[in-house]
Amino acid sequence: MEKSGDAPAPPVKKGRAAAERLADKQQEISVTEFFEKNKQILGFDSRTKSLLMGVKEAVDNALDACEETGILPDISVRLVKLGDEDFKVSIEDNGPGIVHRMMPNVFGRLLYGSRFHALRQSRGQQGIGISATIMYANLSTGLPAHVASRIEGEDEAAWEMDIAVDTKTNRPVVTDDKAFVWENKAHGTLIEYTTKGRYMTGKQSIFEYLKETAIVNPHACLVFHDPDGKVFTFERATETMPSKAKEIKPHPQGLEIGDLMRYAKDTAQKTLSSFLCNDFCRITPRIANEVSGMAKLKVEQDPQKLTRDQCQALTEALAQVKIMPPPTDCLSPIGDVLIKKGLMHILDGIRPEYYATPITRPPKAVNGNPFLVEAGIVYGGEIPPDQQVSVMRFANRVPLLYQQGADVITKAVADIDWRRYGLEQRGGKGVPFGPAIILVHVASTKVPFTSEGKEAIAALPEIQNEIELALKLCARNLKSHLNKKERKAKTHEKFEIVQQILPDLANKSAEQLHRPVPDLARTIIRIMNVVWVEPDTIKENSARKITYTVFNYTNKVRTFMLHAQLPPECSSPDLKKSTLFDSSNNEGKTQWLIKDLQPAKSVQIVFNLAGDLADTFDPDDVYVSGISPLVVMGAEALPGDWGIRGLAITEEDETVLENDTAAEAEEQQEEKEEEDFDREEKDDYC
Amino acid sequence: MEKSGDAPAPPVKKGRAAAERLADKQQEISVTEFFEKNKQILGFDSRTKSLLMGVKEAVDNALDACEETGILPDISVRLVKLGDEDFKVSIEDNGPGIVHRMMPNVFGRLLYGSRFHALRQSRGQQGIGISATIMYANLSTGLPAHVASRIEGEDEAAWEMDIAVDTKTNRPVVTDDKAFVWENKAHGTLIEYTTKGRYMTGKQSIFEYLKETAIVNPHACLVFHDPDGKVFTFERATETMPSKAKEIKPHPQGLEIGDLMRYAKDTAQKTLSSFLCNDFCRITPRIANEVSGMAKLKVEQDPQKLTRDQCQALTEALAQVKIMPPPTDCLSPIGDVLIKKGLMHILDGIRPEYYATPITRPPKAVNGNPFLVEAGIVYGGEIPPDQQVSVMRFANRVPLLYQQGADVITKAVADIDWRRYGLEQRGGKGVPFGPAIILVHVASTKVPFTSEGKEAIAALPEIQNEIELALKLCARNLKSHLNKKERKAKTHEKFEIVQQILPDLANKSAEQLHRPVPDLARTIIRIMNVVWVEPDTIKENSARKITYTVFNYTNKVRTFMLHAQLPPECSSPDLKKSTLFDSSNNEGKTQWLIKDLQPAKSVQIVFNLAGDLADTFDPDDVYVSGISPLVVMGAEALPGDWGIRGLAITEEDETVLENDTAAEAEEQQEEKEEEDFDREEKDDYC
Repeated sequence: MEKSGDAPAPPVKKGRAAAERLADKQQEISVTEFFEKNKQILGFDSRTKSLLMGVKEAVDNALDACEETGILPDISVRLVKLGDEDFKVSIEDNGPGIVHRMMPNVFGRLLYGSRFHALRQSRGQQGIGISATIMYANLSTGLPAHVASRIEGEDEAAWEMDIAVDTKTNRPVVTDDKAFVWENKAHGTLIEYTTKGRYMTGKQSIFEYLKETAIVNPHACLVFHDPDGKVFTFERATETMPSKAKEIKPHPQGLEIGDLMRYAKDTAQKTLSSFLCNDFCRITPRIANEVSGMAKLKVEQDPQKLTRDQCQALTEALAQVKIMPPPTDCLSPIGDVLIKKGLMHILDGIRPEYYATPITRPPKAVNGNPFLVEAGIVYGGEIPPDQQVSVMRFANRVPLLYQQGADVITKAVADIDWRRYGLEQRGGKGVPFGPAIILVHVASTKVPFTSEGKEAIAALPEIQNEIELALKLCARNLKSHLNKKERKAKTHEKFEIVQQILPDLANKSAEQLHRPVPDLARTIIRIMNVVWVEPDTIKENSARKITYTVFNYTNKVRTFMLHAQLPPECSSPDLKKSTLFDSSNNEGKTQWLIKDLQPAKSVQIVFNLAGDLADTFDPDDVYVSGISPLVVMGAEALPGDWGIRGLAITEEDETVLENDTAAEAEEQQEEKEEEDFDREEKDDYC
Repeated sequence: MEKSGDAPAPPVKKGRAAAERLADKQQEISVTEFFEKNKQILGFDSRTKSLLMGVKEAVDNALDACEETGILPDISVRLVKLGDEDFKVSIEDNGPGIVHRMMPNVFGRLLYGSRFHALRQSRGQQGIGISATIMYANLSTGLPAHVASRIEGEDEAAWEMDIAVDTKTNRPVVTDDKAFVWENKAHGTLIEYTTKGRYMTGKQSIFEYLKETAIVNPHACLVFHDPDGKVFTFERATETMPSKAKEIKPHPQGLEIGDLMRYAKDTAQKTLSSFLCNDFCRITPRIANEVSGMAKLKVEQDPQKLTRDQCQALTEALAQVKIMPPPTDCLSPIGDVLIKKGLMHILDGIRPEYYATPITRPPKAVNGNPFLVEAGIVYGGEIPPDQQVSVMRFANRVPLLYQQGADVITKAVADIDWRRYGLEQRGGKGVPFGPAIILVHVASTKVPFTSEGKEAIAALPEIQNEIELALKLCARNLKSHLNKKERKAKTHEKFEIVQQILPDLANKSAEQLHRPVPDLARTIIRIMNVVWVEPDTIKENSARKITYTVFNYTNKVRTFMLHAQLPPECSSPDLKKSTLFDSSNNEGKTQWLIKDLQPAKSVQIVFNLAGDLADTFDPDDVYVSGISPLVVMGAEALPGDWGIRGLAITEEDETVLENDTAAEAEEQQEEKEEEDFDREEKDDYC
């Protein structure tokens, strides 16, 4: 170190006086005061954002309560402008209502709630959001919030009161508590508060939040009255309630010794064996035995008397035995059909060209918390082709509008090389460019948000990995769509030549030569050498008429099956009337048998689809069996995991018509290998 | 809405039963449990990060305590690997120590601290960090932390104890509390804990954290014992303590009505006037009078009896009167000299070509919290030229290593068009590419972090604006350095031709023609037409010998002054011995008078610099007065805000030698206008 001789600051040592001075200032910090002074942590860092956050917290709570009690949610949000920066915000739902005695705590106390200790998927987890909204509204205007609630039942009164949060004590301050008659309201809750705020439209607006909420909650009906008095209604796209997430016990996977020690201390169980089997999920008496043995403990041991070292041994033993992954009914994924339906319902206006079949990944667990990832990609239409792809991020069915840069979803999107999948991307890194919208939904019993404002998901490698896998699967669909589109365009050209120009030529020549028109079948067959499946859709009111025309442009008689998965409960009875109809199951998987189709001949399959989900069916998703897919244009080989056995190929189709099909398969294999490699690398990192 | 007839899920209404079921689950959430279950919020989301976070919290606390008591910090960090993922971590400081009775709460209780309520700059603000470290260590290993502390004084014993956090009650659990003799330790604190962790090197490592801490805390000495037993020492670069940040009262600017109501309720003052004058800063009796009048209130009014509407009127009045900005001694900026010194001290190994003079912006306030921004840029040398510029982010002298994407500093860097300043940047957006390191320090009485983990600063527009201004000022220095470098390179070529080739030519020609060698002075002057200032540096041990050679290559006799700001207390007595020396002040601003320098003649100024800050002087930073800067090469015009009047220009230099100087000035003007525009635009947005 280069010490200069001059200007040393001699340490000012003040001994006890200095230390006591510091000690005098030490004091407890009320959690409410903490959040009040750190608004940005809860997402209330600007007037614009505060206005959104309040609506979000109230709507999320309403959706949770409806889901837990099996009610199809009807939620209305109303903003009234009172002054330059003053708004009255009201959110009303048709939820189960809140019992009178709980209203003060639910709305007037931070860190108070019903979902924190429950291991299952829910939007709210912290018991902070709605009381924080009321706290900040009160801070900015000095006014309490007004809440009203009614629970179902003829004898039940509706109750209303004014509530504020006492930030020193974190307790509700209630005024004007009284029963009232709520006309035409069987059950539900109303929250109304005045707050400073700034209203804006665009990407991070209340409108956008509600729109995206509607996409991933297609069972909800949301109505928005904006400050100009305009009314926007997002109707429900389905009346099917999401599957109810069940509460589970903690899973021993990744259990910290500290957790185990606490559970042991708090348990009501009398023996180690019953403690392990009853207080955790997926531990059987056999496993309890095995684990106790490994830890050199008796199964009769009193769990409350376990020492730290014994718990250490137990933790190590638990890490070594094989335990089933956590049950997954604690999660409530949206599902591929409803994601597509939701996207279609809301994005219809921009007429996308293609909705890649959304992917719902199987659940995994991280730190003992089950989670799963869903992804979808929408392509083309009026989506701007020269801008960065927009990424719609969701956590437990709640759209995330802020902190995109901090989110694991953005990180996963940016880490994928999208050039392989037909999108532009500089250097194979970063959010890609192109006419696409990417949707990712992370569902978990405990989403690891980066802050209480729940604006971004922390970049846990396990979650990032799942997102990348889901997106790559979706992207492969997109790529195959783009390939198919290109190939179809090419073959269509050929087809038109064959269908129109050749006969014209033949007619003309025959006429001029005064000879009979020759039979072109053999020529056409020689040129095409393909079985052609051509889908066609006609919209008739709410129903869709689907036609598949199948041409045999090969020189063999063909017998094969055509397969498609129709949306369940959508197909009309006439489906089975078709002579080609073979069978269908309750999943909607349907097959038609095309028997002895002669060269140069064609047949037609016609059926109607009606109902809620009719438009989620993509007629291009059609498969064949009993024939080499290499001679078929317009349908793919029946997937191996389809679940229903197709027709076996009885003849050898040696003609490899399309080299690019083989090339594509090879490419996919390469990709898969690369992904496996990526995954391994990441596992190393974790 | 398209309602299909089939499959409606009839609302499952369960009335009171459903609402009661939800109510039964409502309960209070302990803040400790909340943070335990949301580790990622405090930054403990992976084993790697947890290891860093603990060290960071302990070192930050040590630096704060030393600063508050005027002690030059000596801090040592030691990591010992106990097992695959088990580490023993010890952090020892020479701080003032903690009085015995406070030790349990300081280390064993979350949201307990001395700095939360104080309005002044400090690293710790929340009273969460160190107890959270102990909580997570305990969670992962089941072991308590061991702490020891001694306060100065012959009679003072050292105390040690084991501490854990009871996560249900948020209270310390103390064991083994006893006095002991701490050999060779006058005062200080030791924290030692065992934790699960993963040790890594690189960009987000403990080493990097300590290195960057050393840069912005040049008064601290940090020693790091890594798990391999290697020892790294970051010596202090200065013995000057940072200026002590003073505590201030809240400033009425941006005060929310809710805050005002609470202050009024809690005040000890008996009249409105004394309440306003004593409980806030910058309110004078005159302002108190004015404000009371505007709000139609009497100054004698009891502040505790103010109604909500009266507070509303007061808030509005306060927003309208002109009040001095908050005092700035609550902040402790690093200062341009020490930033440069710190950077040089640590980055010396990569031999940067240029350190742009760091910028310390004047303080502003946001939400009543004063803040200021400092920025520096380092360029060239061995910094990789083809990679993204690395951005070193600091908040209250603490390096931020994670969540770069979420940080206002990154946002500000990405929003500047760096192409103007000589760095590569695709599309004029995003973090630029080039051989540079950008440093930004945000200091505030309350840094708005995006989460309790204090990893990123929220993107408040006011802060982003200041960062951009600071960076643009720095970038302009960089640009001017790059321009100067280019110009110098060009002129140097010319210079060499004139100095060597011309005389050679003349000699050769004269010889061949048997004629006397001609006097080349006039020719050289005609070609050069410039006054040339050539700096030269020789390092001699810890001192530096600086030489300025001044050539007059114009056809006029020149009289002018040369100015440079030498680091204070660095110049040796021989400075004043030079016959050219004119004067210097206690800031180190020094001038030399060059009198009647004849055409084709030169003079030399020689002096030595020694001491701590000698190497922060850049000899290229030299200025002239009394001569048109347009005829000078190697020195700039004396800045208008230099504070010392230079020599007036007595003669008119009409020759505009360097069009690019004028062009550059114009360019800078344009830039300034653009910036002003940017700023206005942003103001609109705020």
